[in-house]
Amino acid sequence: MDFSTLDPLIRPRSLAVVGASDDATRIGGRPIAYMKTRGFHGELWPVNPKRDTVQGIKCFSGVEALPAAPDVGLIAVPGGAALDAVEALGEKGCKAAIMFTAGFAETGDEGALMQDKLVAAARRHGMRLLGPNCLGLFNDAIGFYPIFSSSFEQGWPVPGRIGIASQSGAYGTHLYSLARNRNIGTPICVTTGNEAEVALGDVLGWMAEAPEVDVICAYAEGIRESEKFLAALDLARRNRKPIVMMKVGRSALGGLAAQSHTASIAGDDAVTDAVLAEYGVVRARNTEELLDIAYAATRRVYPARNTLGVVTVSGGAGVLISDVAESLDFPMPPMPEETQRKLLGFVPFCAPRNPVDCTAQAFNQIELVGEFARATAAEGGYSSLLAFFTQVGGSPTVGPKVRAQMKPVVEAHPDRLWAVSIIAPPETATEWEKDGFLVFEDPTRAVVALHAMGRFGEAFARGAEAAPQPAPVALPATAPSEAKAKQILDAAGVPAVPEEACADAEAAVAAARRFGFPVVMKILSPDILHKSEIGGVLLDVADEDAVREGFATLMARAKQHAPGARIEGALVAKQIKGAVEMAMGILRDPVFGPVAMVGLGGVFIEVLKDVAFRRCPFDTAEAERLIRSLKGFPLLDGARGRPKADVPALAQALSALSLFAAGAGPRLLSVDVNPVLVLPEGAYAADAVIELDAAEG
Amino acid sequence: MDFSTLDPLIRPRSLAVVGASDDATRIGGRPIAYMKTRGFHGELWPVNPKRDTVQGIKCFSGVEALPAAPDVGLIAVPGGAALDAVEALGEKGCKAAIMFTAGFAETGDEGALMQDKLVAAARRHGMRLLGPNCLGLFNDAIGFYPIFSSSFEQGWPVPGRIGIASQSGAYGTHLYSLARNRNIGTPICVTTGNEAEVALGDVLGWMAEAPEVDVICAYAEGIRESEKFLAALDLARRNRKPIVMMKVGRSALGGLAAQSHTASIAGDDAVTDAVLAEYGVVRARNTEELLDIAYAATRRVYPARNTLGVVTVSGGAGVLISDVAESLDFPMPPMPEETQRKLLGFVPFCAPRNPVDCTAQAFNQIELVGEFARATAAEGGYSSLLAFFTQVGGSPTVGPKVRAQMKPVVEAHPDRLWAVSIIAPPETATEWEKDGFLVFEDPTRAVVALHAMGRFGEAFARGAEAAPQPAPVALPATAPSEAKAKQILDAAGVPAVPEEACADAEAAVAAARRFGFPVVMKILSPDILHKSEIGGVLLDVADEDAVREGFATLMARAKQHAPGARIEGALVAKQIKGAVEMAMGILRDPVFGPVAMVGLGGVFIEVLKDVAFRRCPFDTAEAERLIRSLKGFPLLDGARGRPKADVPALAQALSALSLFAAGAGPRLLSVDVNPVLVLPEGAYAADAVIELDAAEG
Repeated sequence: MDFSTLDPLIRPRSLAVVGASDDATRIGGRPIAYMKTRGFHGELWPVNPKRDTVQGIKCFSGVEALPAAPDVGLIAVPGGAALDAVEALGEKGCKAAIMFTAGFAETGDEGALMQDKLVAAARRHGMRLLGPNCLGLFNDAIGFYPIFSSSFEQGWPVPGRIGIASQSGAYGTHLYSLARNRNIGTPICVTTGNEAEVALGDVLGWMAEAPEVDVICAYAEGIRESEKFLAALDLARRNRKPIVMMKVGRSALGGLAAQSHTASIAGDDAVTDAVLAEYGVVRARNTEELLDIAYAATRRVYPARNTLGVVTVSGGAGVLISDVAESLDFPMPPMPEETQRKLLGFVPFCAPRNPVDCTAQAFNQIELVGEFARATAAEGGYSSLLAFFTQVGGSPTVGPKVRAQMKPVVEAHPDRLWAVSIIAPPETATEWEKDGFLVFEDPTRAVVALHAMGRFGEAFARGAEAAPQPAPVALPATAPSEAKAKQILDAAGVPAVPEEACADAEAAVAAARRFGFPVVMKILSPDILHKSEIGGVLLDVADEDAVREGFATLMARAKQHAPGARIEGALVAKQIKGAVEMAMGILRDPVFGPVAMVGLGGVFIEVLKDVAFRRCPFDTAEAERLIRSLKGFPLLDGARGRPKADVPALAQALSALSLFAAGAGPRLLSVDVNPVLVLPEGAYAADAVIELDAAEG
Repeated sequence: MDFSTLDPLIRPRSLAVVGASDDATRIGGRPIAYMKTRGFHGELWPVNPKRDTVQGIKCFSGVEALPAAPDVGLIAVPGGAALDAVEALGEKGCKAAIMFTAGFAETGDEGALMQDKLVAAARRHGMRLLGPNCLGLFNDAIGFYPIFSSSFEQGWPVPGRIGIASQSGAYGTHLYSLARNRNIGTPICVTTGNEAEVALGDVLGWMAEAPEVDVICAYAEGIRESEKFLAALDLARRNRKPIVMMKVGRSALGGLAAQSHTASIAGDDAVTDAVLAEYGVVRARNTEELLDIAYAATRRVYPARNTLGVVTVSGGAGVLISDVAESLDFPMPPMPEETQRKLLGFVPFCAPRNPVDCTAQAFNQIELVGEFARATAAEGGYSSLLAFFTQVGGSPTVGPKVRAQMKPVVEAHPDRLWAVSIIAPPETATEWEKDGFLVFEDPTRAVVALHAMGRFGEAFARGAEAAPQPAPVALPATAPSEAKAKQILDAAGVPAVPEEACADAEAAVAAARRFGFPVVMKILSPDILHKSEIGGVLLDVADEDAVREGFATLMARAKQHAPGARIEGALVAKQIKGAVEMAMGILRDPVFGPVAMVGLGGVFIEVLKDVAFRRCPFDTAEAERLIRSLKGFPLLDGARGRPKADVPALAQALSALSLFAAGAGPRLLSVDVNPVLVLPEGAYAADAVIELDAAEG
């Protein structure tokens, strides 16, 4: 994937503004005013047929009158004129366009047609197109501000190495403003709007390669062009650039709003979670968390095995911090016994375990702070360290003494992530930052941010696993019967319960005799997908007479409830007892293609939604990680005195299912293997449904 | 409960400082320096035998030399001298003492003994005692600062009506500092430390009655003296004073830290959750959330049926807000159809449903903001309204125009809760506040705070339900057998499955014949509590022969696995099929006494911990609320095509169990009713274990 085609868009040497306004508060005027103020490093060419100058700059009557082809054209004219502007810029040889104009795909079918025309025109001329319906972008390093946000009235970006890529313009600049107010530098921000041509993936990919960006903040309502998006995530991971992301539209209600807002495809939220986790992208729950994590990431310390050591002057804060760490599964191992004894020697009523609490005694003996911090860092060996000093750290009288205690400790351990929770005026906070600390007021937020650094570290250490290669799968012309579906899956490596298709009662008796009683009997029909709903499944069929009676019952029920269905007899299977019932399946996500699901069977899936998702294909190690992530996993692991179930066999079957789905292509709509019976040895599909797209069959 | 005995502690007319220091940075010096600066409204008497004056104030050689009995004495002398000071103050007629001194119960058994002596001395003299090991308190209205925090170096409290009650001194002042930096007034703060005598409940009760406090922020690691605590919560609810609380020590790790930090009794976290919910206390997840909620509460608008209407200039923020609201179950009903059509008339590409998005078009037509907000408030009828204007609301050029649009809308609807999400300099934010808005930067935090106002509103509207009165329960002398336990509970209103205790096989056969096959058989012994672990429960006993065989099997297993146990035969019960298996029980919480638990049976309880708790006793309506709060509730409500289970019968039994527990007194250690079989009609206990405290038997 070549993301450098965005260079003319984000790092241009010349810009034409079509619809330039002399009024610095209008949409077509703000960008020019901003670039005048910040000093755009390239040529700035306003275009407006009614004016000779715009905001004191020579103005051109039309694109054709420009002295040369601009690297990028900014389009701030309404509806129809916007399309003409794209054509004119293309004719001139322009390489990219930014379109503020709204009223396209976000308004309905007619607008979508208009938008298609824009894209066709841009592509014809080999132009990249940002928008329409976007707020624009800025790149402060070259004073480039093709954006109509009012954010800059409250201040310009401070220096920094964080890039913002946001589908929503309002949100992107909201984030920028919050960052600037916290003195966090986000000098590049690109908003993508309708994403008719340039999508979020392009921007992420460009930032993953851009030398001026270390850390990426992303915001999306829906993901388009998954291939590009995933290539960008992969590139960022390989370049060790953390991405922290807000993906909204989680909820049913939010999803509705997302539809009415943009023409985006809101993929299923659980699938998005799974994809982001796969690439080590950390998903923030809210804006503050996003900024906190991005801020912490600028230190570029990403421990692959993150542990937390806490130094505190307050036991209460220590408890609070422990609670948060526990809720995140962020390990806080205890200090070595010997060190604990040593610290108890300094303060008999201290708490030396971790959190390491030197107590308010530090007020009268300031050197305790240094002593306790040194012991925690040197002897505790934690990769992340959090010191809680609250307003003491910002106190004009005590604060500098505390800083003097801490500074040599940090200097002795520059490989660690150091954070301090203090309440201090901004200039004091900056002093602490200069000493090497991340500064947070709220200890909870510090813990969340430090924890995220470990998640990046894990992903970077793991790297890209070579996904197993799926073999092409030949699907039948129409949806197979249950028996056929299980045969297909069995051949693909998902073992089925021993069973036999029986055309008549006597064949059923013979099969049952072979398997041993009791057996399970089911209606066998390619036309009846959900058998249990019509009483088409009989359990505990205990002897030969019961098999005969059961066969008759099934035929009668099939006739009654599904009169038109083709009935091929009954399926007789060995009834397996004492197994853990699982379910697995494949769904085709509109964005990310085939996605595998695994969960505990029955009520676990339907009532508790205790399931895990993963993009296909994946290997058995990944399959086992998914299975172990289930809340109900203890049921497979010997909970309540059961024997342990054969998790490796289940993982093997799940990975095989993922390879099958990846190899089968887009005609495979879904697979439902439910239940999968997991025994102490072996895991067997007891039922399977495969849905195919008939239209392409 | 008389909370006014804390008046001399928090609103005194005179204060003696025992251990007064001339050094304004020492623990014994800071309070005096602070009170000099803020002008304490009463008499300030330093006590130090070595000095004639302290910080320019006349100093007394000892407590006995004071001109009169002080309302309160502050004790800042170490260990043994502290006890002498309590005695001396008591002798003098002092009404309350505040003790900074550490090294008591928090250090172990020896310290706990010392602490007991302190309390005994204080009680003997009728003195209230705050601490020991506390940071002190402040009450800015009277310039009263018996506290050694360094917080005030960064600023004094701003006016306001929020009180802080915190067990941890560092946390209490951390909270104060954060509030002050946000211009939120918390002019009263009391920290309780070891809570040897004055506990958090005293302070909450005092604040619930104090005219200077409208809203209470509380922080606790453990709760002591539950009766006082609950009386305080009840009083606050009756006085419509919201309490927002951090209760830390949730996690196993946090719990450990809590124990090493103070001598507090950390009650089970789920029980704490249940108790706080019962009284309408909102539990904050972190410090920011606590402050956000307290800030919002100062508007004193607490809608009993809270709904959220959102006006936005950004679709993206609208989606984000919808997601948060959905995750909180905060209803966002759609706008009336007719209003939606009207708004589409203004901006054809707007989103008028709710969130009501007037789009960036508002930049060119500012009056759209007023139009959309007016429609949302007047025609949408929401009790809470959130406007998202991000940096536009703080923009020097556009911001004032947006405010001018919004002001008349707010003035027309003063009964609503209005919040705005803007990024603005503090002075601009204050302007918005003056117009009647709560101001938040982050829309997520605004939604959380607005939602909490509804939770207060519900609790205030509900009021105190008259708990049903338990009748005294006569417990047997020793733990009853299963059969006896079920008889006892059946008599108390928890119906048991039809069953019979049978001394021999033939009696078992006769009973089984009466109930109809199949039956369940269990070992009958007062000495074997967990029968299934030794194979003492037989299911599906299908005919008379099987009953005889089963009886023999049970006797053999009892002999083998519990050789010393008294065996009374077997219990024969009708086997109930098709029921939903529930479990309920009673545990004795060390703080709150008998607490009832209900959950779905089997794996739901043991693996998924899907249970609800409630302090005993409670009525059937409350019991039903608990049952409906379970994640697995759909299983009772007809999920997966099952018939609906008899939830009223289950609620009746649960309420009866709670009354039984409340009437039984402290000898009842626990009750375990598992399973409770819930049928379409009726709910029956199929097994029960009652544990009694033998020592008191």
